Amino acid sequence: MSRFSLAAMTTVTVLGLGPMGHALAAAFTAAHHPTTVWNRTPGKENGLDATVAATAAEAIAASPLVVVCVRDYAVAQSILDTDALEGRTLVNVSGGSPSQARAMATWAAAQGIDYLDGVIVATTEAIGGPEAALFYSGPADVYETHRATLSALGENANHLGDDPGRAAAFDASLQDMLWTSMSGVIHMFTLAKAENVPAADIAGHAKAMLGFFPDMIDLLADQVAAEHYPGDAGTLEATAATMDHILSAIRAHDLDNGVLAAARTQVQQAIDAGHGADGFGRLAAL
Amino acid sequence: MSRFSLAAMTTVTVLGLGPMGHALAAAFTAAHHPTTVWNRTPGKENGLDATVAATAAEAIAASPLVVVCVRDYAVAQSILDTDALEGRTLVNVSGGSPSQARAMATWAAAQGIDYLDGVIVATTEAIGGPEAALFYSGPADVYETHRATLSALGENANHLGDDPGRAAAFDASLQDMLWTSMSGVIHMFTLAKAENVPAADIAGHAKAMLGFFPDMIDLLADQVAAEHYPGDAGTLEATAATMDHILSAIRAHDLDNGVLAAARTQVQQAIDAGHGADGFGRLAAL
Repeated sequence: MSRFSLAAMTTVTVLGLGPMGHALAAAFTAAHHPTTVWNRTPGKENGLDATVAATAAEAIAASPLVVVCVRDYAVAQSILDTDALEGRTLVNVSGGSPSQARAMATWAAAQGIDYLDGVIVATTEAIGGPEAALFYSGPADVYETHRATLSALGENANHLGDDPGRAAAFDASLQDMLWTSMSGVIHMFTLAKAENVPAADIAGHAKAMLGFFPDMIDLLADQVAAEHYPGDAGTLEATAATMDHILSAIRAHDLDNGVLAAARTQVQQAIDAGHGADGFGRLAAL
Repeated sequence: MSRFSLAAMTTVTVLGLGPMGHALAAAFTAAHHPTTVWNRTPGKENGLDATVAATAAEAIAASPLVVVCVRDYAVAQSILDTDALEGRTLVNVSGGSPSQARAMATWAAAQGIDYLDGVIVATTEAIGGPEAALFYSGPADVYETHRATLSALGENANHLGDDPGRAAAFDASLQDMLWTSMSGVIHMFTLAKAENVPAADIAGHAKAMLGFFPDMIDLLADQVAAEHYPGDAGTLEATAATMDHILSAIRAHDLDNGVLAAARTQVQQAIDAGHGADGFGRLAAL
């Protein structure tokens, strides 16, 4: 209880009021944290019960905990006032790669700034609720100091370790799966449309097929962890034949086949390397 | 009840005893259908309570309903005896494209053979059970005649209409999503491994992320059906930035980036065409 009271008193600054930054600021204010906000373009604070700072430096000076949520690390770096930040904690949830996260952590350490790299896997509507997944990496003691305050953004928060690049690595890996899969979903609709199959019809069966995904993910995780790729549940040779059928259907309609063709190329590389009787997990070891 | 008794009496022939053909024959015998089997290479009938025919023609002559399950349509065509098949019903569940299915239906019609094209979305273990999804297309009266018998393969059977290519179109579309997504899953593990993230760690979060997929599929289906692609839930410009972060992470480890790079190219084409503020569904209309 005392920790809650302490956390509730913590002042927070949010830099960047795009849709996600706005949602973060709203979650902090909803949890009764006095919140200061700043955005390069003014007027984005509508609906927020927050103090609007005139400059980024003024916003930073208002709080021991500064959350920056802008388009990318270059923009983040451009608005961060080094002098103002010294002795404070910076949590950067802007999008970036693991190496960018590590570079920013190195910069922060040199300036006497405590740094956590953060990743948010959620829609703006989900912020603060149980569906938002938050990942942080950086020094464990820094995370512990601000854990209660950060929990305003969502209780499903994960500290992934001291390596500041770890959160971005999780994010890049998960988003790799997400956007590749989304490309598959949209191409399914594209091909179905060319075959005069209504989107709603194929969507129902696609959702049913999703039911197999958790087991497939676990199966592939086991294969990757064991570095052993048995083809019992389907060989790369069989996958190649299936992909050729799909590609044939795609080409019959002159549709773009770039994504699946690239996947087919990877399968062929594994077959050419002598792994045609192995399972799909082998592709992780090419 | 009378239909069940009648169906139970129906004799069935299965041509092709690979793992799937074997599972189909086993399901027919389990449902008490006298079953005749044939495979080009003998000795594959182990464990089956079925009559083994010496030739494909002999196997076809044994039953009014002939199911062929081989590698592809070319192999199927090579083993089908036209004279023996005349007046019977052929159900082809070999893998192929919609145009191959339509071509085989045209051939069958010219030979006086009733033809159904079938697609099985299931593992061999699932055949006969509730998890097996079966799709058929071709004349509705032919399907009705054999529906009770075919239900031995699984009660989740769907007749998709008279167009014989429709089942293969469903299959190609669903498999397009499946294998593109699987490429995303395996690449997620590949990138995580390069970042020293254990497969089991990322698998857990990946499965949690799957929870968003049904809603995303419905959202995209609605956009595709309405031919209206609002960017409220994320614009193509934002997706491009995210993909660039992922590609940067992939390239930092010199990993193959073919699949996601192809997806990124499609996004860029949409942006270049002036659709950067639209949602991802716009890609179905390129």
